[in-house]
Amino acid sequence: MMAGSQYLTGDKAAIDAFLDRFDVFLFDCDGVLWSGDHVFPGTAETIAMLREKGKQLVFVTNNSTKSRADYKKKFDNLGIPAKVEEVFGSSYSAAIYISRILKLSAPKNKVFVLGEAGIEAELASESIPYCGGTDPSLRRDMESEDYKRIADESALDPDVGVVLSGLDFHVNYLKLSLGLAYLRKGAVFLATNVDSTLPNANTLFPGAGSIGAPLVKAWGKEPLALGKPSQAMMDAIEGKFQFDRSRTCMVGDRLNTDIQFGIKGKLGGTLAVLTGVSKKEDFLAEGAEVVPTAYLDKLGDLLG
Amino acid sequence: MMAGSQYLTGDKAAIDAFLDRFDVFLFDCDGVLWSGDHVFPGTAETIAMLREKGKQLVFVTNNSTKSRADYKKKFDNLGIPAKVEEVFGSSYSAAIYISRILKLSAPKNKVFVLGEAGIEAELASESIPYCGGTDPSLRRDMESEDYKRIADESALDPDVGVVLSGLDFHVNYLKLSLGLAYLRKGAVFLATNVDSTLPNANTLFPGAGSIGAPLVKAWGKEPLALGKPSQAMMDAIEGKFQFDRSRTCMVGDRLNTDIQFGIKGKLGGTLAVLTGVSKKEDFLAEGAEVVPTAYLDKLGDLLG
Repeated sequence: MMAGSQYLTGDKAAIDAFLDRFDVFLFDCDGVLWSGDHVFPGTAETIAMLREKGKQLVFVTNNSTKSRADYKKKFDNLGIPAKVEEVFGSSYSAAIYISRILKLSAPKNKVFVLGEAGIEAELASESIPYCGGTDPSLRRDMESEDYKRIADESALDPDVGVVLSGLDFHVNYLKLSLGLAYLRKGAVFLATNVDSTLPNANTLFPGAGSIGAPLVKAWGKEPLALGKPSQAMMDAIEGKFQFDRSRTCMVGDRLNTDIQFGIKGKLGGTLAVLTGVSKKEDFLAEGAEVVPTAYLDKLGDLLG
Repeated sequence: MMAGSQYLTGDKAAIDAFLDRFDVFLFDCDGVLWSGDHVFPGTAETIAMLREKGKQLVFVTNNSTKSRADYKKKFDNLGIPAKVEEVFGSSYSAAIYISRILKLSAPKNKVFVLGEAGIEAELASESIPYCGGTDPSLRRDMESEDYKRIADESALDPDVGVVLSGLDFHVNYLKLSLGLAYLRKGAVFLATNVDSTLPNANTLFPGAGSIGAPLVKAWGKEPLALGKPSQAMMDAIEGKFQFDRSRTCMVGDRLNTDIQFGIKGKLGGTLAVLTGVSKKEDFLAEGAEVVPTAYLDKLGDLLG
């Protein structure tokens, strides 16, 4: 029998009891703290309140376009206090996986990146060589000669051993063709994350999982994802932060990534907010598969 | 009990008997007649031989980037005799479906195109209004303002009632974002075809199905495909050419599109050639699901 999800908004006693159960809060960011550049009311005050109570905070994001340092700047710009060490992104998670788990031998450990500068920065932080990514020479139309040079491999870097797919705002046919060629040559297929959509301006745009979908369709195989809800990411976070899972709560707006991530990770609890993708009908419905421990209309409601 | 596939290469008597069974031959083009700009040996002579025998020929292509007129030029350039009326492409099939089956009321019948000029030409041939496609103003990076203008719908054309996804060599994040926004507003989701790969220069590049995959992933629903193996395309061909299915043979290189298309269409026979995607092991294997009536190493082997 599945227990229901507890509604905390407006119930001060229930909120206090819920907060007391946890020492660590893992936060999803987009859809929880903000949407795009719009900060939800009460976000900064809620974060400050949790710090005052001595809670450890980790900002876990599937956003692969920003490095941890970039993300810290976003917190600063939006007036939310955070430290670089508290940020844990899917690009960093992927870099950790490549350097410490895959352990390909140099020089055959180069990564072809379908993504933005954040991925490149995190790969560099783990001393992993890369190509593709933001290379301006790839921001152009495919030309007749490119087909031949990809086919005869003269356009390919012989050291590429991994294709890492993330959110690339500059995706084009040339980069997709190169990515497919490396996969066909035997490169390991990884994704920073496979979110289908990206919330922004109160609506949805294509996410990393959608931008990488051409490679999945053309190659016929799914990548190993290093973002939520992959437990590879939870293991990496735990390796860094050494928390007690039973005293940890995952806070998020998406059932199939955030809440699933916390449940699969056997955390002490999960908290859904209704400011993002999932609606309460999704988990209150009879037979719902992913049900958070509790939920709020918005994060700021934790202020009581 | 599944009958095996008959190997015709080098067997003159078997070839003659096979040809006598059919009045009409539907040909896939890429991977059968040519690969990219490379014509397979004997293609032109085989086409000429079939014409001499009085066979009706239809060139059925999932290539959505070219109009029928463009495709005729390709035949001319490669030295293969063909008439515009013999060409039947997935873009034309989609235009026929939109104008004659969907029958949306003007002005709410505008089509947002993810694809090239061939789609636009075929839509125009059926007097269907369109936007997107090759519009040069969409060949640029997504900007901050675009998120807001898509979210508040000021960047959207209120008359769009269909999103038609094909092979777009100029796919970018802006076009994908617009396509997703139209789907979320209720547009009908169609695809010219859903081939995962495009053969060229003796290797594989991302096909229309891969280029449209971001919309499928982000929207969470599959489009209705108007190319092979969709029977909507077979119905359209039959409507135009009035052939006897039992005396018709589909010739192709892909089991899951071409051969499947002929089998599902209850044609008299199917003929696979080994110059493209599928290998003979794919249909000779025990338990193979899609088995052509006969197969050849290459089309030119029909010359005996």
